[in-house]
Amino acid sequence: MRDLSVGPDCVCLNTATLGFRDPLELTVRRVAEAGFGFITPWRQEVDERHPERAAHVIRDAGLKVGGYCRTEYFSADDRGGRTASIDSNRRAVEVAAVLGAPFVVAVVGGLAPNSRDIQACREQILEGLEALKPTLKATGVAIALEPLHPFYAADRSLLNTVEQARRWCERLDPDNEGLFGIAVDAYHVWWDPDLEGSLDRASDRIMALHVCDWMRQTGDPLLDRGMMGDGVIELARLRQSVETRGFKGPVEVEIFSKENWWKRPPEEILRICRERLNTVV
Amino acid sequence: MRDLSVGPDCVCLNTATLGFRDPLELTVRRVAEAGFGFITPWRQEVDERHPERAAHVIRDAGLKVGGYCRTEYFSADDRGGRTASIDSNRRAVEVAAVLGAPFVVAVVGGLAPNSRDIQACREQILEGLEALKPTLKATGVAIALEPLHPFYAADRSLLNTVEQARRWCERLDPDNEGLFGIAVDAYHVWWDPDLEGSLDRASDRIMALHVCDWMRQTGDPLLDRGMMGDGVIELARLRQSVETRGFKGPVEVEIFSKENWWKRPPEEILRICRERLNTVV
Repeated sequence: MRDLSVGPDCVCLNTATLGFRDPLELTVRRVAEAGFGFITPWRQEVDERHPERAAHVIRDAGLKVGGYCRTEYFSADDRGGRTASIDSNRRAVEVAAVLGAPFVVAVVGGLAPNSRDIQACREQILEGLEALKPTLKATGVAIALEPLHPFYAADRSLLNTVEQARRWCERLDPDNEGLFGIAVDAYHVWWDPDLEGSLDRASDRIMALHVCDWMRQTGDPLLDRGMMGDGVIELARLRQSVETRGFKGPVEVEIFSKENWWKRPPEEILRICRERLNTVV
Repeated sequence: MRDLSVGPDCVCLNTATLGFRDPLELTVRRVAEAGFGFITPWRQEVDERHPERAAHVIRDAGLKVGGYCRTEYFSADDRGGRTASIDSNRRAVEVAAVLGAPFVVAVVGGLAPNSRDIQACREQILEGLEALKPTLKATGVAIALEPLHPFYAADRSLLNTVEQARRWCERLDPDNEGLFGIAVDAYHVWWDPDLEGSLDRASDRIMALHVCDWMRQTGDPLLDRGMMGDGVIELARLRQSVETRGFKGPVEVEIFSKENWWKRPPEEILRICRERLNTVV
């Protein structure tokens, strides 16, 4: 395993971890000062009409862009909704190219608001992803498909396991041209009895590793994620699993924690994230 | 598909659906009057020192026992805890035999309270299940392994998919002597991208089909389950899937709903359950 404590090159901060309380300029400076080499910003923090401005701010701070968060949901009740989502996601890819992000993270969407047809909605999503391919090829930016915890299947993502993401990659990018890969998030996949096997099969598709922790008593599955080391996930084992299989990207911290971490000063959050990366991940 | 409206023979009521507000005698009478042919009671409703009394009450009302709920968690921090759990679960099997239940439903347990070692805890669980085999053989009662939604992996069940349950059955009961089977609960498995394939492979192991519904906005994943038809699960498709693969047991309603259904009169709950079985399952 790599030693994450030696410098900023292996560690990335996803800005969601700080709760979106400050402008990107300030966040970028804090993240760099805390010893992270990469940052993954969200779309609401970037003026997508002038993405070169955010690119400049990030570069000036000496940071690289880990990824860009995230796609809009591809599933929708009508054709118009699906087309609007594809248009928006195409723009996200173009912006990611300007930012120098290697990929846009895809949270693909759950059941369309008035649908129970899980198969049809998965097909809508795959069609939407397929429609991005010309833009991916033109920009060199990839889509990192992020399987979300099955808790989110109804309203956020019908992509729920690493194995399913691998199958989608095989369908969307059969020759593995780097158009589609997988973002493995500890919070979403730690429970999977097939995790090791599916990481084996997906080893050449893993684009990102996200870490936080699953609290044994989870109040709100969306916004009650834990700091690494405070919950039940064997994070070091997961990192070893993906690094053994060839993953070389930065380890990215992404913590949604409305009632705990998002209430703390950003400097404190960043300091503890950096420590925990060294001690428990 | 079978026609569930023709009579009581294909439908079962899990008493959790009524919120455990009344003694078993009263519940049994209501369930029979509402047109269910089977009932699945819980251990706290049965005097396990004298299970013949509950057996008599159920038989007198003309009901059969669908299953018996449920095992205690097999995972524990120490050997003493694991032994106590096995002893208790052995007793549950013996009581099930007196009740005439074909199986005890197993909710196997999550991570032991002070453990993060998911592999070790799964092994503890498998060892505990293995230890029940002499009692299963002696009584003719089976264990129906119930995969729980991955949301419960930390604190309730490290058995989370039908495929995993099938693998456990193959390990515990390699010749399929009927010692171990699978309880498929719509709430827990509806999201699984491998559901159809895993039902195919597990077709000769399916012992139970539980129904309720997943609400799109789920507040409490434990106690906010929906009435069939009020949520997003394609219940008729799931029933068709398991019946096509040979399932002939009763369809069992099991709804945990602290803030909604458990506040309603039992007769109303039972009437609506019975209607929805006919119209949406």
